Amino acid sequence: MDEKDTNRLEAFSDGVFAVAITLLVLDIKLPYADSSGKLLGNSELWQAIFEQWPMLLAFVTSFFTIGIMWLNHHRIFKHIKHSDTSLVFLNIILLMLIVFIPVPTALLVEYITHPELNTAALLYSGTFFAMALCFNLLWRYASYKGRLLGQQVDMDGVNKISRQYLFGPLVYIIALAIAWINTPASLIFNLLLAIFFALPDTP
Amino acid sequence: MDEKDTNRLEAFSDGVFAVAITLLVLDIKLPYADSSGKLLGNSELWQAIFEQWPMLLAFVTSFFTIGIMWLNHHRIFKHIKHSDTSLVFLNIILLMLIVFIPVPTALLVEYITHPELNTAALLYSGTFFAMALCFNLLWRYASYKGRLLGQQVDMDGVNKISRQYLFGPLVYIIALAIAWINTPASLIFNLLLAIFFALPDTP
Amino acid sequence: MDEKDTNRLEAFSDGVFAVAITLLVLDIKLPYADSSGKLLGNSELWQAIFEQWPMLLAFVTSFFTIGIMWLNHHRIFKHIKHSDTSLVFLNIILLMLIVFIPVPTALLVEYITHPELNTAALLYSGTFFAMALCFNLLWRYASYKGRLLGQQVDMDGVNKISRQYLFGPLVYIIALAIAWINTPASLIFNLLLAIFFALPDTP
Amino acid sequence: MDEKDTNRLEAFSDGVFAVAITLLVLDIKLPYADSSGKLLGNSELWQAIFEQWPMLLAFVTSFFTIGIMWLNHHRIFKHIKHSDTSLVFLNIILLMLIVFIPVPTALLVEYITHPELNTAALLYSGTFFAMALCFNLLWRYASYKGRLLGQQVDMDGVNKISRQYLFGPLVYIIALAIAWINTPASLIFNLLLAIFFALPDTP
Repeated sequence: MDEKDTNRLEAFSDGVFAVAITLLVLDIKLPYADSSGKLLGNSELWQAIFEQWPMLLAFVTSFFTIGIMWLNHHRIFKHIKHSDTSLVFLNIILLMLIVFIPVPTALLVEYITHPELNTAALLYSGTFFAMALCFNLLWRYASYKGRLLGQQVDMDGVNKISRQYLFGPLVYIIALAIAWINTPASLIFNLLLAIFFALPDTP
Repeated sequence: MDEKDTNRLEAFSDGVFAVAITLLVLDIKLPYADSSGKLLGNSELWQAIFEQWPMLLAFVTSFFTIGIMWLNHHRIFKHIKHSDTSLVFLNIILLMLIVFIPVPTALLVEYITHPELNTAALLYSGTFFAMALCFNLLWRYASYKGRLLGQQVDMDGVNKISRQYLFGPLVYIIALAIAWINTPASLIFNLLLAIFFALPDTP
Repeated sequence: MDEKDTNRLEAFSDGVFAVAITLLVLDIKLPYADSSGKLLGNSELWQAIFEQWPMLLAFVTSFFTIGIMWLNHHRIFKHIKHSDTSLVFLNIILLMLIVFIPVPTALLVEYITHPELNTAALLYSGTFFAMALCFNLLWRYASYKGRLLGQQVDMDGVNKISRQYLFGPLVYIIALAIAWINTPASLIFNLLLAIFFALPDTP
Repeated sequence: MDEKDTNRLEAFSDGVFAVAITLLVLDIKLPYADSSGKLLGNSELWQAIFEQWPMLLAFVTSFFTIGIMWLNHHRIFKHIKHSDTSLVFLNIILLMLIVFIPVPTALLVEYITHPELNTAALLYSGTFFAMALCFNLLWRYASYKGRLLGQQVDMDGVNKISRQYLFGPLVYIIALAIAWINTPASLIFNLLLAIFFALPDTP
């Protein structure tokens, strides 16, 4: 197959990333009236907005996470030039996990102020662990013996990604362990991990 | 018309596929509180999530189905280089069926544990049958005497698709018959069929 | 500005068309339980689905309408090669009307069985009238003295569109008049008009 | 990195803009029945629609705003040819603010007829101020010493944008001050500002 394959795969993936990241706003509902339907006053409204901080924090976190996953996808598909059925399947699984992100995020929002209840945090961290695993599988499959890479491979860039992805699943197991113990710490750790994988020059 | 036509038709279709596949997540609602509004405990939450297995199974099935339909669309449009009004109409009908998928899926989720009630399964299988028929029509129309194919046709690839599509509607009639008898079996059979049509080298 | 301008304008418009056409499915809600929450039996479910015919008809009509509007947009932008701020503004207004379609459609669904109440039909036909006007304005602006057309204009194709668009608003005024008198007739007339504008060779 | 980077960044951004602008329609809910579920008569329905003017005005305003923001994004990315991690991050923050627009808009709709309650107007104007700031940062970062611009820079176009962006945040601070005093005036002022930044030749 020629390069056109990867182009349409990337366009489809870009579309899924774009829709998934935009749908996050549907989970934000700011209150504007009290229980009797009366509009809130100025200070009451500010307070009501500030009380929604877990919702707003989750929006920002998930937005950055999906944005960074897009960046990762973009980065590895700069090297992947060819496509086959297995790659498409791995990519579908990856997109499925990305589309799924709002579900554990919404659960985490409810449980973030109850650190003793770690089920939501485990599900959240577990989703990220599965995503890291899936990125690894996709990359290993495509880069193994240069299977789906272009003719003029940028070996330096390929090796950088391979090295960075080497301990990806390992650190996400640590994230899972943290989720077992402390919900907010695990949220922050997952965000830091996402940013770490966004940096191009980390070893 | 020139090749640009197909390009924008593919871009528009990719967009529809991407939105349709992402909207599936809107049907997933995990419970987090009991009827009195109290947050669920750890084991209660796990149990509540596991009880949503039909919803999660339907999400995975529909996600793969739409993903595979995209792959099929992508595969036949690698050969179709020209466009005309009839092709656009057939493509709109195809996209309409794909966008419609969440509706019978949501119905199936409700009825999956009641195999004696086969209406939902029939509607679900019927949608797939219509989709297979539509893919066939579109392909027959475009490939008939090479009407809309490019100048340098990959006859091998074209013939492979034609052969694979030959008994597509036939097997989907079998799927309809199974839906009449057994709901879960028909769900699995439909998923297997989708995967079968995703394989490139099946006769 | 160079041709790249129109490319990104088309890509953005394709995205809006794709999302708008896919969001139509959100308005389809099939019933599956009676008022006491009990699942419907086989024949009851079939009947409940058939009773939703206005909803399903509106889905099909709106899907075809937006699909045909995409085709029209695609057709005129094959000739428009350059872009400026006014074109972008006219295009935004056009996209706004397309995105708005589900609103009068949903209203029409409720009122279709009450032909004596013509407000919904007028709003529906009015939206289409505004859309036809907007397509005309955009095309007149772009094609006036070949302003935004390419260097090698296909004058035959340009003139065909200009002639076809000449009496567009006129026939939509007839559609408005029909809406005043008869709701279902106006729905069918609007669909026929959309199909008419999709045909490439009408005078 | 080569030009392909910016291409996929633009495609992803176009997708987000397209989804965000289309989702605005989900906030429009026209009433069709009175509290007892009876369909409204002709004059009652017209009146009910007209009473939704803040909702419809907010739809039009937000639609134009996001459309103009797309135009701005498009305009600066005509000059930006290269991409790096910082640019992607700034772009994600910008997209996040654009996706967020419906939230303060929905709040403003509720409070527009209560000018003495300025919290919603402040949040609305504040979002625009943050967006103007973010556009500025992105442009300054990319254009500083021609960092991410192409080899053949259109210095005239670049300088025009830089000059136009110079007092962007300043006028948005004025908008914030107006929001403090008068809600409707601030809505109109924000719309005028958006149109101002859409004009290509303003100094």
